Amino acid sequence: MASKNESRTHVDDVQAKKPKLEISDNEALDLTGKSSLKSFKAFDFTEVLNEDAKQKFLFLHGKSENKDAVVLLEKTPFSTDINTIKKILSSETHLKETLKNDIYGTYEATIPAELNSVKATVIYPATEKHITKYKEQEMFVVYETEDLYNSVTLPHIESQKFSVQWVYNILDKKCESDRIVFEDCSSEDTGFILLPDMKWDRKDINSLYLQAIVHKHGIKSLRDLDQSHLPLLKNILKKSLEAVKEKFGVSKDKLRVYIHYLPSYYHLHVHITHVKLEAPGFEADHAHLLSDVIENIELCSDYYKQRTLTYKVREQDELYKRLKDTYFC
Amino acid sequence: MASKNESRTHVDDVQAKKPKLEISDNEALDLTGKSSLKSFKAFDFTEVLNEDAKQKFLFLHGKSENKDAVVLLEKTPFSTDINTIKKILSSETHLKETLKNDIYGTYEATIPAELNSVKATVIYPATEKHITKYKEQEMFVVYETEDLYNSVTLPHIESQKFSVQWVYNILDKKCESDRIVFEDCSSEDTGFILLPDMKWDRKDINSLYLQAIVHKHGIKSLRDLDQSHLPLLKNILKKSLEAVKEKFGVSKDKLRVYIHYLPSYYHLHVHITHVKLEAPGFEADHAHLLSDVIENIELCSDYYKQRTLTYKVREQDELYKRLKDTYFC
Repeated sequence: MASKNESRTHVDDVQAKKPKLEISDNEALDLTGKSSLKSFKAFDFTEVLNEDAKQKFLFLHGKSENKDAVVLLEKTPFSTDINTIKKILSSETHLKETLKNDIYGTYEATIPAELNSVKATVIYPATEKHITKYKEQEMFVVYETEDLYNSVTLPHIESQKFSVQWVYNILDKKCESDRIVFEDCSSEDTGFILLPDMKWDRKDINSLYLQAIVHKHGIKSLRDLDQSHLPLLKNILKKSLEAVKEKFGVSKDKLRVYIHYLPSYYHLHVHITHVKLEAPGFEADHAHLLSDVIENIELCSDYYKQRTLTYKVREQDELYKRLKDTYFC
Repeated sequence: MASKNESRTHVDDVQAKKPKLEISDNEALDLTGKSSLKSFKAFDFTEVLNEDAKQKFLFLHGKSENKDAVVLLEKTPFSTDINTIKKILSSETHLKETLKNDIYGTYEATIPAELNSVKATVIYPATEKHITKYKEQEMFVVYETEDLYNSVTLPHIESQKFSVQWVYNILDKKCESDRIVFEDCSSEDTGFILLPDMKWDRKDINSLYLQAIVHKHGIKSLRDLDQSHLPLLKNILKKSLEAVKEKFGVSKDKLRVYIHYLPSYYHLHVHITHVKLEAPGFEADHAHLLSDVIENIELCSDYYKQRTLTYKVREQDELYKRLKDTYFC
């Protein structure tokens, strides 16, 4: 499925695993055994792994019976249900003034607890990998020149032997063929498959997220693109926008079409998202608009081979470890 | 002050006005007159203006004594204070299981109300402008060609006669001279002033946000840049990174340096933010990395004059109204 290899540090990752609604017999499954967890009393807090003031989450590490546990807390979005809003605005909510100036006043509002729940995810027993995944990581900006790509990044990609077999399975209709939104089979060089990204529920149009995956094998990333790929890139831009308009009624002026560098997997694919979606990875040092890519290659066929490309690496990334001895020294 | 003209739809805007801690005598200042507001009971809810599930805010429109009121609610970030975390993890927090699968469990947690307050901002009486500002607006993607810039965008910029007098006041040290972090006066063509963006509190290094404002008048935006500006751009990139390293101890690999297009004001300025800050306006259709801008101009002096530039407009923007009759038809 598209973007399955994408690394993200967010509670949604847990949701993405789509846990089934069944209770297992295994006693290690939760902090209190077979019965449902009623409080955090068995969780012995040790450290804050990460927090985010904008998205309002807090990731905690602790122990229970000498085994590691991770607790992910996230404030819930406000309901837009009118009755719930009216309850929040009722006299049960108490205000404490913090500032007042002219027509503006700010208050600390204490809302009845049941109208203001927090989503909690418990991972127990947690492995070292879970702890690393939810721990805040240092990030570093890399200015990757052509030389740095050839001397460090390319050998890294080749050594990792990132498997894209799952992509070939999609292209060969061995998997996920029921998810295909559109396919262009006009030629091996310009064909592609369009399918929903795993992060999209296929319902909320404002969260629309699709990926176009090229049929042609061997195009690892943006770095490989030159004028020989212009027919492919133009075909994707034109046909996928037409398909999204036809299937979902969303027109070009509501869509973003872009390529990630670094990509999450090394088989060329294009992201198509709704302009209202704050898609992870749409930052200027990660996303390259497909229309820009086409214009740049038209200006200079070797644009992406010669160009300094900027991206972020995290300290746990394998690539960071390679760069540490050469680039960051 | 830097970025004062930037348009954002967020409760931070209210904070940015830095209201003083004084109670005025004017009876219209709050929903209950001179006394402090204790609840929302005088607020008669009419509609949801906007909501954001990621940042957890809800903007409401209503009436009080026949005058408009706007209420902005935002869930507060979790405290990282250990005692507060321990209170949240105490037996006073109740869990209700929603899913259990293998080592993962998700719960609805009911936390004591006083540990889980909501920030409320009340604007009363609110004008039509407040309501429009906080109302969700349609966004549209514009692919601005050289022709579209010359026929629509440039006449729009010129007709609006956006005043940049406040920028000249900063450059002439008539205002905010105490805020200057660094100044390069080496020449009128390459000099600039570096000062903190209004959004930065100057304390939290992970939220570092500075702006470099060029001394030279008349460079409206990225569109005006060509090879004659290379010494200026290179000087800003080099000297401002050195200054940030010296003053704040933050090195190049922790910083993003970029130009907005469209900018919030039409006098060339460069944004410098910490890589950890999710700065508004760092999307790939808004931010252009300064290092990329330099390389592109080196490749082709007229790169930004000829190039299609992609950005978003909102339906209330003056520019959208102009584009409606020509571009979006």
